[in-house]
Amino acid sequence: MGEGGVGDRPRVSSLKPRLLLGPGPSHVPARVREAMARPTLGHLDPQFLALMDDVAQRLRALFGTVNRVTFPVSGTGSAGMEAALANVLEPGDTAIVGVAGAFGQRLSEMVTRMGARAVRVEAEWGRIVEPGALLEALGQHPEARLLAVVHAETSTGMRQPLEELGAALRGGETLFVVDAVTSLGGIPVEADGIGIDICYAGTQKCLSVPPGLAPITFSERALKRVRRRTRPVQSWYLDVTLIERYWGGERLYHHTAPINLMYALHEALVMVEEEGLENRFCRHNTVGIELHRALEERGFTLLAQEGYRLPQLTAVKLPGGREEAALRARLLDDYGIEIGGGLGPFKGTLWRIGLMGASCTRANVRRFLRATDELMGGGSG
Amino acid sequence: MGEGGVGDRPRVSSLKPRLLLGPGPSHVPARVREAMARPTLGHLDPQFLALMDDVAQRLRALFGTVNRVTFPVSGTGSAGMEAALANVLEPGDTAIVGVAGAFGQRLSEMVTRMGARAVRVEAEWGRIVEPGALLEALGQHPEARLLAVVHAETSTGMRQPLEELGAALRGGETLFVVDAVTSLGGIPVEADGIGIDICYAGTQKCLSVPPGLAPITFSERALKRVRRRTRPVQSWYLDVTLIERYWGGERLYHHTAPINLMYALHEALVMVEEEGLENRFCRHNTVGIELHRALEERGFTLLAQEGYRLPQLTAVKLPGGREEAALRARLLDDYGIEIGGGLGPFKGTLWRIGLMGASCTRANVRRFLRATDELMGGGSG
Repeated sequence: MGEGGVGDRPRVSSLKPRLLLGPGPSHVPARVREAMARPTLGHLDPQFLALMDDVAQRLRALFGTVNRVTFPVSGTGSAGMEAALANVLEPGDTAIVGVAGAFGQRLSEMVTRMGARAVRVEAEWGRIVEPGALLEALGQHPEARLLAVVHAETSTGMRQPLEELGAALRGGETLFVVDAVTSLGGIPVEADGIGIDICYAGTQKCLSVPPGLAPITFSERALKRVRRRTRPVQSWYLDVTLIERYWGGERLYHHTAPINLMYALHEALVMVEEEGLENRFCRHNTVGIELHRALEERGFTLLAQEGYRLPQLTAVKLPGGREEAALRARLLDDYGIEIGGGLGPFKGTLWRIGLMGASCTRANVRRFLRATDELMGGGSG
Repeated sequence: MGEGGVGDRPRVSSLKPRLLLGPGPSHVPARVREAMARPTLGHLDPQFLALMDDVAQRLRALFGTVNRVTFPVSGTGSAGMEAALANVLEPGDTAIVGVAGAFGQRLSEMVTRMGARAVRVEAEWGRIVEPGALLEALGQHPEARLLAVVHAETSTGMRQPLEELGAALRGGETLFVVDAVTSLGGIPVEADGIGIDICYAGTQKCLSVPPGLAPITFSERALKRVRRRTRPVQSWYLDVTLIERYWGGERLYHHTAPINLMYALHEALVMVEEEGLENRFCRHNTVGIELHRALEERGFTLLAQEGYRLPQLTAVKLPGGREEAALRARLLDDYGIEIGGGLGPFKGTLWRIGLMGASCTRANVRRFLRATDELMGGGSG
């Protein structure tokens, strides 16, 4: 081995950095990457266990919860979604799912795969799922094991209102499940305040940690449901009753935790604390709104319903129905800026611009706008 | 936030490195950690896609396969195990599982959770599962969808022989599934040569990459089975038909790949190529046997059956029935050396010493033996 052609093969050291302004991953600060590169420890080393406890404590602050069972799932945001559903659903159960984009869709598909029945309450992509419509479905399906919505729909830039749902579900038998993959650390989540039973997120969005972990939290009510299952969770890997024996006092080996990603998450959570949660939300809000205005001034159309727009993820249709893919490719190739395209029905007609975590700065907005102006002005439009 | 007590909380920068000689994670070379710390790219960036292709190509060489569908699952080794089973099993199916340790046990438990029936062929921990006994079970259960064994049983240090099983299963209807979590990169695997249909591994063992990825490969025969399923794979996250649309030419977004862990894996695979696979196997074999001999000279008893001992993972009973936990804690605290304890029936009576990947050097063996001699000599034994 070693001879011939190896020079043509890619090497990590030759990768050109980009400005990440897509739907995730977001820019990972050098400090977080340096923490991640520290020597690997064993998953039962007392030093690592202490770090895990601190990660859990910091995640509780971020989720706005006192839930004992709060930890990062060893997988990406979608693994968090699967863990949220798989632990509480059994075949034959009913789940009410709000669907107004690709991630509501994904929730619904996972429910079905688990042998449960998904009652889909749909809305046009870009609009919120009306809480009234979700509660009406609950009235028709009082047996529903859970009601799930996507807080920050990454495919459309829509922020789903949660308060009314949380209040209505509190004290009942139906669990409130919230996908906070793109919201956690960018806009307030407040799991306990709202009454969320299971909430999960991703690390590569507003936390600016490389992808590979999915913070999740389970309320006592949710755990009671897990303990009352008639059969074990289908997924051994995601079974919270096994994972909590490792994260809790018992420290029973379950699977090897992704040690170095945990370092990265810890350092990012320290940075969240240093900035202050309120300051962080304010930064996302201010910079995001600035982008919204600037795009509207340039003739772009925001997809998300007014009043429910995420500052950290902006989905826009291009002015004059311009084709997006070629322009987006030039943004990447000529300017080193990554943004996202549309998903599902909006493939080819939408840009998705993320201002998440460390990517969320006014300087980045200016750099993106300058590049866009040059491209749009110099093009055929 | 920021005031009071933060000084007492753990920080990644304060973690003391250890010499990792346990059952994994193994020592991660600085070069791999530096690659991991390179700026994060998007999961659809052409540069990253080229790197993925190269990771797949290098994994094929390592698995000894030409299988098109070869990639790292976005989770640890146990996620690889779950992916291997979940994609081919449906409720009501039969699976024959060799059980002679904790990981055979885990295979069997996962099968059951999926609603399939596990026909367990057991052996005493430390001994191999006799191929004849497995094939006899197959004779009694010709309908079996798969036959699964653990190539390198991390709980006992036993190497399961595969050749006879592979030959017997070739051309039949029963798939051959092999857990190579602790073998890949340390001893030969040769998936195609042996006739393995699904083989999975972990990165934190003989590849010396931080935990969080599980390389896996599916034969065309296994994929045919997946396509003939009557219902979708229970796990959306692990569904190979969805994942291959991202890893294959289509590049359809499924979930966000763990970008930086992939950098680490790529760099480690380059290092495997630089060393040469044969040299690597030879190193593991030589150093491992040296440890076996040195331990036997000191009165330790090897758990694994003679002729079937893994060089990369050695399980030993302590001389004179000495209690292991306190000594192991002193190895960690006073000498900075991590080794593992026993699992299941061997909790409290076994040491497990890993010489995997970058941890596998004669210098490390000497350092471990010096420390052990001091501890054992100075103790009550």
